[in-house]
Amino acid sequence: MSFRYEIRLSGEGGQGLVLAGKILAEAAAIYDNLNATQSQSYGPEARGGASRSEVILSDEDIDYPKAVHIDLLLALTQESCDRYAADLKSNGILLVDQDAVLTTPEGSFKVYRVPIIQMARDRVGRALVANIVALGLIAGIAKIVSEKALRQAIEARVPKGTEELNLKAFAVGLEHAKTLV
Amino acid sequence: MSFRYEIRLSGEGGQGLVLAGKILAEAAAIYDNLNATQSQSYGPEARGGASRSEVILSDEDIDYPKAVHIDLLLALTQESCDRYAADLKSNGILLVDQDAVLTTPEGSFKVYRVPIIQMARDRVGRALVANIVALGLIAGIAKIVSEKALRQAIEARVPKGTEELNLKAFAVGLEHAKTLV
Repeated sequence: MSFRYEIRLSGEGGQGLVLAGKILAEAAAIYDNLNATQSQSYGPEARGGASRSEVILSDEDIDYPKAVHIDLLLALTQESCDRYAADLKSNGILLVDQDAVLTTPEGSFKVYRVPIIQMARDRVGRALVANIVALGLIAGIAKIVSEKALRQAIEARVPKGTEELNLKAFAVGLEHAKTLV
Repeated sequence: MSFRYEIRLSGEGGQGLVLAGKILAEAAAIYDNLNATQSQSYGPEARGGASRSEVILSDEDIDYPKAVHIDLLLALTQESCDRYAADLKSNGILLVDQDAVLTTPEGSFKVYRVPIIQMARDRVGRALVANIVALGLIAGIAKIVSEKALRQAIEARVPKGTEELNLKAFAVGLEHAKTLV
């Protein structure tokens, strides 16, 4: 039986969601030996400032690289939560920034509300690394990619000189996830 | 009648093909009002060092974001040319680095051999900007995204401080394309 896991990272431009998706895909494929695709769509939403990055992980070739039944949705804005929560599959995971997303729709998915951006600002010192705090949360909640692979991909992909900051952001997210699951 | 154009940028890791794909997609979508997706696959090839980035442009929603009938293939290595040229559609365009790709397969596509990496090194001063020289060539050969949109997306996306270098790389590619078509 083949395995397929769909992740959508959503929010607004500048939140580093494409980089986060790329790190997740590389961690899974290069270090964890899965297959992965990472994609982003640009259209009317992007012109309005919204941003969305998708990652699909599988143990087989990925023939259809668009997320259609989402296993995990990260929403860093109310708009992205409203727009995408309906695409979550039954028993999926909705992870939202608790300060940015005030209302989450009803549904048969599990909701985690975490002050992701605030944690990045207060515990790592840079709101900008909220994307990597989110990766730590995803690693701890979904356990779909190994922590070690994610650390390797973070080190390989973040801008030179920011490795330590980003690894700290990852650790903060991961540690918090362990209080949730 | 709807319009769809599939581009695959292929070579090896470190050549900036994902960034080039992203610039192309953003130029098309944010500045030229098309819809665009940009994706990359990671799997056994990526573990071997190969890199591939795909961009699909359309005037409609893009339901199937995987390139299957490629309109334009950029190949910066012999391996990527060998692997992907067969996916080119009839009358498609094969753009190769003439020093890296020594043999191109037979087919009903048009082949352009350009010393892309050498031009980046000798005329811009950095082999690293071969990806942006290639964007200039693509803009001039395929004329699928406007030069203005590409310049805007380059300025918005390349690392701060390298805008001028990259715009020069784009101009070098574009100018050379005009001698080809």
